[in-house]
Amino acid sequence: MKIGIVGIGLIGASLGWDLRQLGHEVIGVSRQQATCETAEQKGICDRASCDLASLEATEVIFICTPIAAILPTIERLIPHLQPQTIITDAGSVKGAIVEPATKLWLNFVGGHPMAGNSESGIAAFEKGLFVDRPYVLTPTPATVPSALTTVDELVRSLKAIVYQTTPEHHDLAVAWISHLPVMVSASLTGACLAETDPQILDLAKKFASTGFRDTSRVGAGNPEMGMMMAQYNREAVLRSLYRYRDRLDGIIDSIASKQWSEIEDLLATNQAARPDFLNSND
Amino acid sequence: MKIGIVGIGLIGASLGWDLRQLGHEVIGVSRQQATCETAEQKGICDRASCDLASLEATEVIFICTPIAAILPTIERLIPHLQPQTIITDAGSVKGAIVEPATKLWLNFVGGHPMAGNSESGIAAFEKGLFVDRPYVLTPTPATVPSALTTVDELVRSLKAIVYQTTPEHHDLAVAWISHLPVMVSASLTGACLAETDPQILDLAKKFASTGFRDTSRVGAGNPEMGMMMAQYNREAVLRSLYRYRDRLDGIIDSIASKQWSEIEDLLATNQAARPDFLNSND
Repeated sequence: MKIGIVGIGLIGASLGWDLRQLGHEVIGVSRQQATCETAEQKGICDRASCDLASLEATEVIFICTPIAAILPTIERLIPHLQPQTIITDAGSVKGAIVEPATKLWLNFVGGHPMAGNSESGIAAFEKGLFVDRPYVLTPTPATVPSALTTVDELVRSLKAIVYQTTPEHHDLAVAWISHLPVMVSASLTGACLAETDPQILDLAKKFASTGFRDTSRVGAGNPEMGMMMAQYNREAVLRSLYRYRDRLDGIIDSIASKQWSEIEDLLATNQAARPDFLNSND
Repeated sequence: MKIGIVGIGLIGASLGWDLRQLGHEVIGVSRQQATCETAEQKGICDRASCDLASLEATEVIFICTPIAAILPTIERLIPHLQPQTIITDAGSVKGAIVEPATKLWLNFVGGHPMAGNSESGIAAFEKGLFVDRPYVLTPTPATVPSALTTVDELVRSLKAIVYQTTPEHHDLAVAWISHLPVMVSASLTGACLAETDPQILDLAKKFASTGFRDTSRVGAGNPEMGMMMAQYNREAVLRSLYRYRDRLDGIIDSIASKQWSEIEDLLATNQAARPDFLNSND
């Protein structure tokens, strides 16, 4: 197939590499000429440029830009496309994207590759990034079945584990396991930094070890990405945050009232349940 | 020196191995005969038994039991000891231990080796576990200076990074970076498990990846240990939890009122500050 990729960052570049290995022709578009040159040099794309018109003959286009750029990119693409071209995206939020995108372009299929590493940008691209990772597709009643089938088959060919669910269910689920952890983790570092006794803060920094490191990690990632999660999945994130605060208040109450067995019971329940959240592919 | 170790778990066994390598004679005491046999077989102790009286001729004794057993162990040791014997402990909380322990035994020095791995028990012992790790000593005005010097030198010989601070400052600092993360992390898994829609919970479990895994890890550790942190460091843990909740409420308010730049600013501040908490030894 002739495949377009808009946004040649970690996800776009990793997709491009894998799709080329599978024999597809890959045409990349980036805002930056330097990224286009790197993409060609590294064999991520057959050709890459800053011009969306270069995608006019493609059959499937993956939009791998930041969330805020997805809909504007589709609008700018439309004048160049043939009606049968399928557009899919890689945004981590689906409710705010899928319905308006489908209105803009009938052959749109919402997607979310749940893969990545701690880096970003084309330099972070990884061969086989999607192997054994969840790749969520979010059709709606308006989705064209043949477009869904095409994207589903392409994604399966990357050896990803494909799930299909509604945009709403996707957003509620990722709020729990992706967006809420960012806010929980950010609040931890934020609270420590609010320590008013400089001696205590200094000792805390010196004593911090793996426990703090792991719990604070996702709250110290790309600030723009964290903000966009909250912005584009606002209702589901707030729902998770309110339930999280209830759970936290429960722990505070148990400690304040010295109900130690309640704390031990909660921790034992978590210890037993956590393996269900750890996929064998992690 | 002739050194006693009470409690031959991860910390006690790792101490025993390293101290024997440095030429000391190490006598272990465990409640379980099987642990004593393992300790002798693996070369962790020269001799090990269930009898505290076996420590009567030791010069320094490390108490490496769970927090709740430290003071009772000292009480049971006293009838067997010569007055010049130094006792130190490895408890992760110091305020609740050091003052009463010093009243029981004048030559007491509070200690906290901040080392470990995800396992526990003698099977998890590691050679060189304390190398380049913080080892906190918490003298008070009542601490005998020569006892402090002896423990300090022993701990430095393990190549640990020794810090001296008050029990109170130790407890406030570890509340931030060790005990608060357990409660924050436990609340995350606890909140997810409270999801009432089984379809959403099922998707959340399937989609969970490194972000959830890291943030939920310390909240799913040993339930008894987590409970004891809260129990024996209650005031400092509550202080951290209240400040954490304030920070969380700030994030919730920013999202609810769509103040996106506040979220981005907080995340950027965290991203800039977190490296200060990551010691090069991690």
